[in-house]
Parts: sequence; C-alpha cells; structure tokens
Amino acid sequence: MTASGAGPSGEDALIARYFKPLATDPGAFDLNDDAAILKPSREDLVLKTDAVVEGVHFLPDDPPDTVARKALRRNLSDLASKGATPGGFLLTLALRSADEAWLTLFSRGLGEDAKQYGCPLMGGETVSTPGPLMISIAAFGRIPPGKMVHRSGAQPGDRVVVTGTIGDAVLGLDILRGGRVAAALAGDAAAREMLVARYRVPQPRCELVQAVRDHAHAAMDVSDGLAGDLAKLCAASDVSAVIDAPSVPLSPAAAAALAAGAVGVEALVCGGDDYEILCAIPEARFQAFALAAAGAGVAVSSIGMVIAAASAPKFLDAQGREMRLSRLSYSHF
Amino acid sequence: MTASGAGPSGEDALIARYFKPLATDPGAFDLNDDAAILKPSREDLVLKTDAVVEGVHFLPDDPPDTVARKALRRNLSDLASKGATPGGFLLTLALRSADEAWLTLFSRGLGEDAKQYGCPLMGGETVSTPGPLMISIAAFGRIPPGKMVHRSGAQPGDRVVVTGTIGDAVLGLDILRGGRVAAALAGDAAAREMLVARYRVPQPRCELVQAVRDHAHAAMDVSDGLAGDLAKLCAASDVSAVIDAPSVPLSPAAAAALAAGAVGVEALVCGGDDYEILCAIPEARFQAFALAAAGAGVAVSSIGMVIAAASAPKFLDAQGREMRLSRLSYSHF
Repeated sequence: MTASGAGPSGEDALIARYFKPLATDPGAFDLNDDAAILKPSREDLVLKTDAVVEGVHFLPDDPPDTVARKALRRNLSDLASKGATPGGFLLTLALRSADEAWLTLFSRGLGEDAKQYGCPLMGGETVSTPGPLMISIAAFGRIPPGKMVHRSGAQPGDRVVVTGTIGDAVLGLDILRGGRVAAALAGDAAAREMLVARYRVPQPRCELVQAVRDHAHAAMDVSDGLAGDLAKLCAASDVSAVIDAPSVPLSPAAAAALAAGAVGVEALVCGGDDYEILCAIPEARFQAFALAAAGAGVAVSSIGMVIAAASAPKFLDAQGREMRLSRLSYSHF
Repeated sequence: MTASGAGPSGEDALIARYFKPLATDPGAFDLNDDAAILKPSREDLVLKTDAVVEGVHFLPDDPPDTVARKALRRNLSDLASKGATPGGFLLTLALRSADEAWLTLFSRGLGEDAKQYGCPLMGGETVSTPGPLMISIAAFGRIPPGKMVHRSGAQPGDRVVVTGTIGDAVLGLDILRGGRVAAALAGDAAAREMLVARYRVPQPRCELVQAVRDHAHAAMDVSDGLAGDLAKLCAASDVSAVIDAPSVPLSPAAAAALAAGAVGVEALVCGGDDYEILCAIPEARFQAFALAAAGAGVAVSSIGMVIAAASAPKFLDAQGREMRLSRLSYSHF
C-alpha cells in the first residue's frame, strides 16, 4: 500500500486519501514505501491474522464503519487473549469498486479504532475482486519475552472462566436476519440494538491483558462458540472440563430471548462471534484475577472446572444432567 | 490457524493436514495456538502484505502449486527490493470449498517455496467465501537496523537499473488467454512455456539482497509495470528519469514477439507482473553492483539516468524521440 502521488493510479489516490491518516507510526513511512519497519524491541512480537468476508462474517448492509471495527477487533481480541498489547496491523482490502461513501465510513471507523487501541496501520494494499468484499488483517502485539499465554497450559483443578456475556452476537445476527429473536424481543428496542451491536462491533478485552498474563494458565478468545473453543483449549492442554451451563453469563437480553423460547442454550454456547476471553485460572489465583478484572471494569464468570480426562468437555444443565451439543462450534468447512 | 484435533471442525482438520508441515519455526507452535511468536532480534523487521485474487492476479485454471508460489513470491520480491531477507509469513486462504486435490497441490507448492526461501509459515487462517479464491499473505523480513532501501533515495546522476528481463509475464498472460502472442510464437513451444512460467511463477531476486543494500540509493520491485513503478520511485525521490527504451532488457521470446508485431514496447514496459528489482545506483557504485549481481547469477541492465526534474520519467526510442505511454501501469481502481 503506497500513497505515492505519481502516475495515474486510482489505487494510489485511494490509499492516500483514505488510509494515509491511519499510518501514524514513523515505521509506516506515511504509506509512501513498499514496506514498513518495526524497530528492534526487547519484547516478543505476537503475530495473528484474521479475515472477514461479506456474507460470511458480516452482512452486505452492515454499516462500513462497523465492518472495519469488526475486522480489526477480531485480531485485537486474539492478541488480548494471549496477554499481548496491540502494536500495529497490515490491511488487505479486496473491493468490487472504489465506492467513496463506503470507503469514507470504513476508513473512519478503522482510524478511530486504530487510535483507540493504539494499533496503527503499518501498510497494506487494495485489490479488486469480482466477488464479495474481504478484509484481511495481520496484527502484531507485544509482550515481555516468554509471557505469551498459550492454549495449552490448563491444569486439572483450574477454574474455567469467561469474560463478559456469551451468545449475544448470535442473537444479534438472528435479529438482522429477521429470525425468532426479533419477535421475542419485539417490545424491547434497546435489547435488540444491544444484541445487534454485539454482533457488529466486538469488544476486545484489551483491558484484561495484564490480568491474563499474570494469572491464566491458558487462554484463548471465544470466536467460534464457547463449547467448541473450550474443546480446543482442553485438547491443546490434554485435559477436559465440566461446565455448569446455568453459570454461563448471559446478558438480560439473551436471558429474555432464552426465557421466551426464541433460542436454546445450545445456540448460545455454540454460536460464536463472542470475542470474550476464555481462560483457565488456578483456584489460588481466581480472587486476584477477579479483582484485577473488576478494576479494569470487565465482568468475569467462573463457569466450571478443568478436570483430568481425555473426553470432550461436558456441559451440565441445572439438574446436573449432561447436555447434548450436536455441533460444538462454527467451522468454515 | 490452528491444528487442534479437538471438535468436529473440518477447518482444523484441513489446517492440520495441509499446513502444519509448513510451520517449521518453533514460534509457530505447530499451528496449535491462536498466535505465533517472533523472539526479539537486533535487526529491523520489514513488514509487507500482498494478496492475489482468482481471475485478477491468477487464472482459474492455473496449477494450484503455481498459485501458491506466486502469492508468496510477490511478497518475497518486495522484501528483496528493500534489501531484506525473508523471515516468515502469515497466510489467509479464502476458499469456496475444501477441495482436497487443490489443497494438496497448493500446500505442496507453498511448502517447497517456504523451504527454498527460508520463509516458514507462522500462522494464518482459512475462511469460506462464495466468491473467487483469494490468498492474502503478510510476510516479514529482517535487515540490519536502518538499512532498508527506500523508494525515496534516488539522486540525479544515478543509473536506473533493472534485474532480469521485462515484459515476459504480460506475454505469458496473453498466451494463456489465446492472444496474438501465441500465434506469433506458434513455432516455438519452449518460448511460449517460458513466458507462461514467467507469468505464473515469479523469480524474486533474493540473491541480490546484499548488493541492493550495499549499493542502491533507492529500490522497489517492478510489479505493476516498469513505467508506472519508475514514476512512483521518481515521485517518492523528487526526481525524474530518462530511459533508453531499447536498453530495457527483453528475453529472446519477448524480442521475437516484439519483432513479429504481436506486441508493442508500451505493453512490455507497462504490463506488470515482472517481479524484477528496479533501483537507482550511483555511477561510482555501478560496477561493484554489476559484479555482485553477476556473482549472484542475476543479470542487471542499466536502462537510463536519474535527472533533476519534476516531470514524469521519459522513455526515448531508438531515434531518441520521446515515446507516448498512455497508461503507465496497472491499477485496480
């Protein structure tokens, strides 16, 4: 991505106009070169890439600024779950056409988030596509050497903890698609708006980076569904877990949709797009972790225990019966 | 991109099967975590991202291994032009379906190149798309601090130098599309194959990294067409250039297509996909640069001079007349 004024290239003009203001790091060279530079650091660099596709990860009529925010925040959520602070990102934007109105809103949303999270645009490129819009972001974060929190450190006896609330995004998507949730919450516009916002604009838990680094044995972000992501964390750690499903934190709106029968627990814990942190916290550290989270203004909930077993994690209902989850998480293939 | 065996996710199985063998760096954690780690280094890290879209940057029936090689090598070419050695890459793969035959060949080609160029897969992800295939790669290279070669350092009196030959790829694309070049070279299968190979599989000039670092005032890779990329380099350096068009290096096949009237000089110097290095070498350094290049087995050609002017670079024909180039380079928008 370069903002060179030379030549008749519409691509260059587009980049200069919309994206140069986001390239605030001196190593981005105002997008005037072919590559960016990161200076040597004493910290580890945490690398992550993630893409969103129109019609798959966002809806064609989602506001462009929320599309940008979601694309970046998905990566920031991953970095946060690893205990890393945002450092910067590279952007690949595949567009059908250079729609100025769309680009204005998209770049504005992206720029606001880049500033808010201290994660400047380092470079990237725009390409044309005859197909759906696609935004691919490669983000990097920083963390003291050796401190990255892995999926693989969970130990029997650890508490299974999640931040925020689970299942809101999948309900927001249902509302946008005119599903049963919209009817169930017909009288509560604020609840519907909150759920839609949770689908469109994730809230990466960057405030919790230090607490995760200090206290978690293992962590990952919940992006493909709590049940499936927990299964992945357990498999990587060679453990299992027992989850008390009624302890899974729900927003009042999600609880209302559940009570109205518009959605089942399974959809909430397998739906995905939550962008909360799932972590394994040793019992002796849980209080300190909860206090640090409260200090950071992030709700955390203990939902179960890590156990020594080779089986898949179990979700127990209010009567202690094992729930059958037919499909643990979203998979593209 | 994770290769966790947990859960019923086809995506995870796909990644484990095809891409885990490419993740040879210990910081990639066998693709078993949510992110990768780069350890602290005393060198600058050079960051680049670049994407290819089916039907735009490659043809739907291009062999999958060449699609993979082109996607990676486009980034390696950028790194080489900056004087950086490859360090690793992140991959985003947007697929319509998990076609095993395609993925087998794609991952094989990608793995061979990752090994050949010392550029391991650090992480990434696969997403589904209803649209064309898209491969986005974010690559990073290493270079001693402050040594990145910029677009912006060209000075009046510098020689304008390019590696290899120019215009082959655009002829290869014409052949694949059944254009006039195929007819002009109907009797020379080897020439046609060479041109098609130049379109499908770029040859990044990684062998020239040290020579570029040691001798070039400015450099970039020729990806969007020599004329347009030279205009960008000149604009970034606040200079102009005069190019002797007959000195632009052509392969025997391109020269034959030109002689047969199947293509004009303009198409060759504006066509793009060359992935050669364009650089400005001070006169006093040219001999040392040419010797270093010869030692590395890379042909280099002096094609003109950098001059002090604000105008666009000029291409002069064999009679010294200025050529009119209607469209300097490829632009997506």
